[in-house]
Amino acid sequence: MDFHFEILKTDPTGARLGRLTTPHGVIDTPAFMPVGTSGTVKGLTQQALTELGVQVLLGNTYHLYLRPGHEKIRRLGGLHRFMSWPGAILTDSGGFQVFSLADLRKITDEGVVFRSHLDGSEHFLSPETSIEIQQALGSDIAMVFDECIEYPADHARAAAAVKRTTEWALRCRDFSRRNTETSTNPGQVYFAIVQGGTHADLRRESARQLVDLDFPGYAIGGLAVGEPHALSCEMAARAAEELPQDRPRYVMGVGLPEQLADYVRCGVDMMDCVLPTRNARNGCLFTSTGRLNIGNAIYADDPRPPDERCSCMVCRTYSRAYLRHLFQANEILASILNSHHNVAFFLDIMGKIRQAIAFGELAELSSEFLARIEAGEP
Amino acid sequence: MDFHFEILKTDPTGARLGRLTTPHGVIDTPAFMPVGTSGTVKGLTQQALTELGVQVLLGNTYHLYLRPGHEKIRRLGGLHRFMSWPGAILTDSGGFQVFSLADLRKITDEGVVFRSHLDGSEHFLSPETSIEIQQALGSDIAMVFDECIEYPADHARAAAAVKRTTEWALRCRDFSRRNTETSTNPGQVYFAIVQGGTHADLRRESARQLVDLDFPGYAIGGLAVGEPHALSCEMAARAAEELPQDRPRYVMGVGLPEQLADYVRCGVDMMDCVLPTRNARNGCLFTSTGRLNIGNAIYADDPRPPDERCSCMVCRTYSRAYLRHLFQANEILASILNSHHNVAFFLDIMGKIRQAIAFGELAELSSEFLARIEAGEP
Repeated sequence: MDFHFEILKTDPTGARLGRLTTPHGVIDTPAFMPVGTSGTVKGLTQQALTELGVQVLLGNTYHLYLRPGHEKIRRLGGLHRFMSWPGAILTDSGGFQVFSLADLRKITDEGVVFRSHLDGSEHFLSPETSIEIQQALGSDIAMVFDECIEYPADHARAAAAVKRTTEWALRCRDFSRRNTETSTNPGQVYFAIVQGGTHADLRRESARQLVDLDFPGYAIGGLAVGEPHALSCEMAARAAEELPQDRPRYVMGVGLPEQLADYVRCGVDMMDCVLPTRNARNGCLFTSTGRLNIGNAIYADDPRPPDERCSCMVCRTYSRAYLRHLFQANEILASILNSHHNVAFFLDIMGKIRQAIAFGELAELSSEFLARIEAGEP
Repeated sequence: MDFHFEILKTDPTGARLGRLTTPHGVIDTPAFMPVGTSGTVKGLTQQALTELGVQVLLGNTYHLYLRPGHEKIRRLGGLHRFMSWPGAILTDSGGFQVFSLADLRKITDEGVVFRSHLDGSEHFLSPETSIEIQQALGSDIAMVFDECIEYPADHARAAAAVKRTTEWALRCRDFSRRNTETSTNPGQVYFAIVQGGTHADLRRESARQLVDLDFPGYAIGGLAVGEPHALSCEMAARAAEELPQDRPRYVMGVGLPEQLADYVRCGVDMMDCVLPTRNARNGCLFTSTGRLNIGNAIYADDPRPPDERCSCMVCRTYSRAYLRHLFQANEILASILNSHHNVAFFLDIMGKIRQAIAFGELAELSSEFLARIEAGEP
């Protein structure tokens, strides 16, 4: 299957219902992508991901490069085969993690020198090496290497990062075109990443520059890094306005359950977030009536499922009292079941959003959803 | 379903093929019981246990009494309902854990005063309180409270423990008969526990005394505590010779894969052991050709399944290289997949043992199995 995107319906809000075809299956959009940092979505087997209906997951180039190493994964047939995942995979470029996790040593136009957060060893990541790594991983969708900036960043700083990001995107495109045969996935495509901080003019400018380079899809990066949610949506919307209608749009690293529809209304087709699995391990369950901290003593005798409106395996089978016990006893099953429910919950929201777009009712869905969450703790 | 045991076939070695009917389903014997210490078999969902074909699992009275507390489990409908496990459950009496995990304060004929390993709080466990707790848990098979001794223990020390264990067994029986309506499982039965250390005459004497008390099943306790395996089997055999043919026999806390058939040849019908799950979390995989420490660097590029003779979900799906990566990266999925394989492996051995008994070929199975394991690392 060759990479292909079609829009099936557009909602009055601007939301798009689509189908993204990849070498590893079709992705119904808007899509939520669980994060499989080191070649595993923490706490879930690949069988569980399949049962949950996951069509695409995210892998982290930075983590996989450091451990087990991209050349090892190349020798073992690429990331799909290495982790036995038949569905689609999107890999990030490593940029965000280098800027947020690693000990940064030096950023130049050439690339970034950094120290590993695992063992302090020194490494160099550039547009070319990022593509090289992602070609070894063989993801279906690879991301270009971008410069991620902190929030807040002033106009000059953000403008410089936009300029560098465009130059790097061009180098990524050219390098990948010169090296089409080194990927373990012949159908691999690249998305460029719009930067620009919280400056609307720069978001537009970054998008326009990247559109000129003609990528099969575009991401909007550098959001959900501390700015208010409304500002985040504003930036996504400004960028999306400059992006071609017929290409998929991906906002990186968002968001909370109640925020997903907001990005969809900005014309966004894909999102990813570690929250469902990370919060699960900390005992935080997302439910249709808000967040539930399962370690709380009020759940010790509560025979109800985590979310009475949810039909996932966990909510069909287990009680809050049992999940609370597992969490208190620090049992592995606590992480497994909490992660399963949270991922199911995010996927379910996206399913409801797609259905709402199909019926032209996205605005109604969002207000109902928010009303329930605001009604308070479950 | 009422408790009922039938022997379908006896092997020339003395091994028995049987069917144990409980209020929560039939158990094909000889059976291996995975250990679900705190209401969860560590690393496995109840769905996974069902898919693995687990018919009975073990719960630990000591752990569940301390956390979340047996009265809480009673209020939530008993242990089956609390942990959403439809199959059979056997609970131990708490005796072994009190003697091995807790800070022992005082042992008298009345019972045992101990401090919790969790928070140091002081508790009292006696034959009566052990039954009371197990009635709240509502296991299908409960164990009487016994005195567990260290290895080695001299004849006088072991004889005293046998005497006390018989007295306590009688008190358990009488207490449970006086309080038949307080169990959350009306069909719950009690097994007595043969003690006697490594003294053959005491094992026989202990068994005879308990048989006089007429229990529906008998366990052989205090084994696999440091004595040589041959001596362990010798003790199991001497005890079994005194036990009635028509009652199930359960050797507690054994054993290694290559040892299971030895106990079966002593006429044993049930076994339990934490090794498959505990070793899994430490990266030790049991295979048909021996133990495999998945953290070993020699597996870093190994595309083979953990055990090429195993058809479990893990061996059908994942490579040693991937499992090694997960273990090195300290991923939850390492514990999940390693535990899944190890439990599958123990259950598979028991299935092969049952088949061999059916065909009168248990002796051949054991020597083939040992030959492969002795052939060395996989």
